[in-house]
Amino acid sequence: MRATVVLLLLCLVTFCSAEPQPALSLMPMPTSVQPGTGHLLIDTSFSVGVAGASDPLLRRAVELFLVNLRRQTGMSPLNMRVADSEQASLVVHADRPNKHGPEFGEEESYSLEISPAGAKLNAATPLGIMRGLQTVLQLLETTSDGFAVPAVTIRDQPRFPWRGLMIDVSRHFMPIDVLKRNLDGMAALKLNVFHWHLSDDQGFRLQSKKFPKLQEMGSDGLYYTQEQVREVIAYARERGIRVVPEFDMPGHSTAWFVGYTELASAPGPYQIERKWGVFDATMDPTEERTYKFLDVFIGEMAELFPDKYFHIGGDEVNGKQWDANSKIQAFLRAHGLKNNQDLQAYFNQRVQKIVSKHGKIMIGWDEVLYPSLPNDLVVQSWRGQDSLAQAAKQGYRGILSSGYYLDHMWPASRHYAVDPMSDAPANLTSEDAQRILGGEACMWAEYVSSENVDSRIWPRMAAIAERLWSPQNVTDINSMYERLEATSHWLDWLGLTHNSSYELMLRRIAGTDDISALKPLADVVEPVNNDVREETAPVEPTSLVPLDRLIDAVRPESSVARQFANSVDRFVASRRKDKDNERLIKVFLLTRNSSFVHYHSSLLREAEPLANNLSRVATVGLQALDYLDRGERPSDAWVMRQTSLLQEAQKPQAQLLLMIVDPVQRLVQAAADQKGPAAQEQE
Amino acid sequence: MRATVVLLLLCLVTFCSAEPQPALSLMPMPTSVQPGTGHLLIDTSFSVGVAGASDPLLRRAVELFLVNLRRQTGMSPLNMRVADSEQASLVVHADRPNKHGPEFGEEESYSLEISPAGAKLNAATPLGIMRGLQTVLQLLETTSDGFAVPAVTIRDQPRFPWRGLMIDVSRHFMPIDVLKRNLDGMAALKLNVFHWHLSDDQGFRLQSKKFPKLQEMGSDGLYYTQEQVREVIAYARERGIRVVPEFDMPGHSTAWFVGYTELASAPGPYQIERKWGVFDATMDPTEERTYKFLDVFIGEMAELFPDKYFHIGGDEVNGKQWDANSKIQAFLRAHGLKNNQDLQAYFNQRVQKIVSKHGKIMIGWDEVLYPSLPNDLVVQSWRGQDSLAQAAKQGYRGILSSGYYLDHMWPASRHYAVDPMSDAPANLTSEDAQRILGGEACMWAEYVSSENVDSRIWPRMAAIAERLWSPQNVTDINSMYERLEATSHWLDWLGLTHNSSYELMLRRIAGTDDISALKPLADVVEPVNNDVREETAPVEPTSLVPLDRLIDAVRPESSVARQFANSVDRFVASRRKDKDNERLIKVFLLTRNSSFVHYHSSLLREAEPLANNLSRVATVGLQALDYLDRGERPSDAWVMRQTSLLQEAQKPQAQLLLMIVDPVQRLVQAAADQKGPAAQEQE
Repeated sequence: MRATVVLLLLCLVTFCSAEPQPALSLMPMPTSVQPGTGHLLIDTSFSVGVAGASDPLLRRAVELFLVNLRRQTGMSPLNMRVADSEQASLVVHADRPNKHGPEFGEEESYSLEISPAGAKLNAATPLGIMRGLQTVLQLLETTSDGFAVPAVTIRDQPRFPWRGLMIDVSRHFMPIDVLKRNLDGMAALKLNVFHWHLSDDQGFRLQSKKFPKLQEMGSDGLYYTQEQVREVIAYARERGIRVVPEFDMPGHSTAWFVGYTELASAPGPYQIERKWGVFDATMDPTEERTYKFLDVFIGEMAELFPDKYFHIGGDEVNGKQWDANSKIQAFLRAHGLKNNQDLQAYFNQRVQKIVSKHGKIMIGWDEVLYPSLPNDLVVQSWRGQDSLAQAAKQGYRGILSSGYYLDHMWPASRHYAVDPMSDAPANLTSEDAQRILGGEACMWAEYVSSENVDSRIWPRMAAIAERLWSPQNVTDINSMYERLEATSHWLDWLGLTHNSSYELMLRRIAGTDDISALKPLADVVEPVNNDVREETAPVEPTSLVPLDRLIDAVRPESSVARQFANSVDRFVASRRKDKDNERLIKVFLLTRNSSFVHYHSSLLREAEPLANNLSRVATVGLQALDYLDRGERPSDAWVMRQTSLLQEAQKPQAQLLLMIVDPVQRLVQAAADQKGPAAQEQE
Repeated sequence: MRATVVLLLLCLVTFCSAEPQPALSLMPMPTSVQPGTGHLLIDTSFSVGVAGASDPLLRRAVELFLVNLRRQTGMSPLNMRVADSEQASLVVHADRPNKHGPEFGEEESYSLEISPAGAKLNAATPLGIMRGLQTVLQLLETTSDGFAVPAVTIRDQPRFPWRGLMIDVSRHFMPIDVLKRNLDGMAALKLNVFHWHLSDDQGFRLQSKKFPKLQEMGSDGLYYTQEQVREVIAYARERGIRVVPEFDMPGHSTAWFVGYTELASAPGPYQIERKWGVFDATMDPTEERTYKFLDVFIGEMAELFPDKYFHIGGDEVNGKQWDANSKIQAFLRAHGLKNNQDLQAYFNQRVQKIVSKHGKIMIGWDEVLYPSLPNDLVVQSWRGQDSLAQAAKQGYRGILSSGYYLDHMWPASRHYAVDPMSDAPANLTSEDAQRILGGEACMWAEYVSSENVDSRIWPRMAAIAERLWSPQNVTDINSMYERLEATSHWLDWLGLTHNSSYELMLRRIAGTDDISALKPLADVVEPVNNDVREETAPVEPTSLVPLDRLIDAVRPESSVARQFANSVDRFVASRRKDKDNERLIKVFLLTRNSSFVHYHSSLLREAEPLANNLSRVATVGLQALDYLDRGERPSDAWVMRQTSLLQEAQKPQAQLLLMIVDPVQRLVQAAADQKGPAAQEQE
């Protein structure tokens, strides 16, 4: 298979102005921002002084701030030091020290005043200082006078006290480097909870010293040592992030049973699960040995993880092993339990007592909610706001995850529109409403590896972070996207690979370093959502199937396609007077209406129909532009044919969606909507 | 300062064919390569078996190979395992184990046979296996059947046993992450010595437990703990790389004296040096306490560093402190020492005895050579091949560094042309010639930080690695550059930042994420060499001056300019029949003849004259193309004017050189060389 590609470049004279980014592309948007006049220069002599309370965490926060500031400015560790608070360029002042690291509900507000003469950052706690320091980093710009932050007065506080990201490390293991760089990203976006989904059917990812067969037999050797766990916790702590571990039980627990069959509700042997889905393997809630095991295990983990909250999962118990086990059925009858839900509630009550005995507060997914549980329970809802509102009315606190599943491959705008307080919670009494603590984005890992996980989390996570931090009325989608672009590039400084891994993966897929023909395609497609991916998979998806297809490399949301759609909308709305925009649209389509290069790569074979669709769609767009340019209305038959072609091109190919079909349809419609006689049909 | 840029894009129909890379872009080129038929598929079931001798180092090498292979293919840790040697896809066989890690002179040859049915890698030692495994990784390609390595028979062995890279961590400190990723790069290129320049006037970078004031007072807190040193050594060892530490003495030692003034030849106090150059501070070779100190210190270091070789520096003693010290002058007279060179020789003899007492062989720069020293001394030559040949004749072994200074900002081709055996060594007896052990590239760090050091080392280092590994007759520059491009991209998989940091730095310099106007400029300039940089510096260069100018971001060698020059040469040679090439040249020049955008950035102000030059040069090129297109000979006056304009544009601006002036001059010449009457002068 050997071929060539025709690449069309267009002769154009365009006027581009390289404006600086909007002065304040802050994300999450602060509660109040008052621009001032001038800016504070940040040069090699820049210094930070600590006034007020001081503790190791605050001093470390200042150090990390300087590390990041040096990275953004390219300065050396010899530049920009900690100084006396009287002479410092930036003086931070915390009212009180923080002895224990970040804890739930701790004050995080801050105020920041920057003038050309200096800056002051005040907060009640070191945690507030950390949040404010991120704002300073985000304000940094290269001006004609040098590096600087603009004069501004900011007052800021989070809307919700619980703003989290869950990362599933069971379906695909994530080495601690991956976690650390994502913790850096979280800190940058003022997130404060890392929810660590440590066990599931596909792997038990943490070393237990009490029950070593958990990791020895349940992890394929892919687990964190306790030393590494402490390292991650310390890393998170320095960034003002709590670490909440999750050990999913009684379901999602196949990996436990590989080493400890006796915990299961059906005889073994068990093997680490390779497939995705909900499986039968479930702990036996009727045996005392289960609780003895959990008591020792939870005791061990309670010591390892300092946070007050302990997540027991509790989701998706299919009950099949319980139904099939006559001893368990007898137990139900003997204890007056009506069904498996009752039995799970019984299990949860027992586990809650153990969790509580070890000094922790239990958190679990929706299913754990059961009236007899104590009121300090926290419910994490994958079901939605109504479920949260109901829990709140019963006195339970909750956090929202429904609508924040990053693996669903939604555009940032869709996540952004999900508000924990919309729908049913909007009608809660203010006391009940207080129980809605915030939300957590979830990065389930069936289809992410350490290579592409960053690109599934970032930059979309930043939109969710803004939803959970900023005032409820911050909802402008255009503003959000503008700031999201800048934020995405800002995060590059932290070593996140959401941008840098893209071309590497494309080169591998192309089988050559020359991706000039592949990238214009990859830039304008988006993956189908994971459910569709699973249903339509070319081979059965398991943890053994490599994630090296085009779907794994492309971005969840195509900003190139979004910007193209905006151009088209502006062009159509301006009644086509916008010649510059028209030229941009034309170049964009011309570079995509070539016949696709046939790379010599097995990984691209599936993408050929997609590439052909792209070429056809681009051709339709160019024809529509021509009609518009000539002021000629196309024939109805032409419009119908193109519309049906475009509909066909909407269908996924290689499990990817072509994101420029809609805007091209709008060009066709604009051509059809022109006044005057229709053109002669000529085929 | 607000402006717009005119960007011209050209209307062109070009035919690009996305060919796969040349099948075997191996670097360094093996001794013998015989292509076979077909390929061996590398899929999820790929396995490696170990036959023959097995030791932990070999097993670890296989593990690391699989980690890299998984990274290049995007496979999971669950794919591609170690298997029985009978069933494995690749069987490695080492004749004997390696007990002690890499040592000088150890056998590194290997043979690799790949057929569609399987692959065999044989070597005398695990070190040879490591080298061969890198070849397998470099052979990987994405074919239409899937990932594969081509059928091939390779026999390979290094030309020289000492193939090193020196990194100076004193002028700018390099965190261990930087060292580790560069060790990965070294292993990929089959290099085997990491020479760690650990102390100099600007910093003492290693923890001494015997003399803690060395790092406490001499490092600004920027030093490696002994634990980190052991970590780096272990990391290098697993990659078949020896670690040779250098502690420069008796000169280049200001940083020692901050904590231990009594070692110096003049009274203190001393401060860590911030400037670059050769300084007066020198150890006192006449005091017994100096040798007592060095005995304890070298003893401590000899234990920490397992390699047999120990580098004492010994370069650039200016003798000023010795001249000024009457006690030292008296010592010279009392011991019959004629001059400072004699005194340094006395010092070296004393130090050599200490080094030897602690079981090590001394290595030093040219200046250490002195007839009375024992013959196991190794001389590292910054002076050149003649100096090496002289040493060899006197029975001393030597390695070449002259011609391999990466900080000199030479093109790869110039380093490539430097052969340790050319000039005087070519006339040595074969016994004497044996004493020339190889070479070491040097990365002096006056003008590199952890951010841009990778881009100063890679990919040019690969050309030097080839010179030191491949047969002497491997000298084709075009082949070298073709393989260098592929190698540069291959190294991206290791996390080296030579490519990824480029755009990040440009964005910082531009002060905006939109670098579409800056990149066409940055792509075609090269830094002046470091001596010129120092002489013409806008502010006095010190370790306190940030390395965030355009000169710090651009590549030492512009491959864009080199490829443009090649296009022009082909075009001129083809007597302009090459229309495709002509169009490429035209687009290239059109995108660069715009007036430069005025970014709002202080960091770009110095580049404005450079940008103006680029625009003028591009305009000249376009005019010359026009003459050629019309077949019209320009007037002599025009040619003279353009030639003088181009000469002007050759001069550095912002300490950067415009690398497209020569090829544009060739276009002008080609236009002038046309037959027929000259065009009328019209101004």
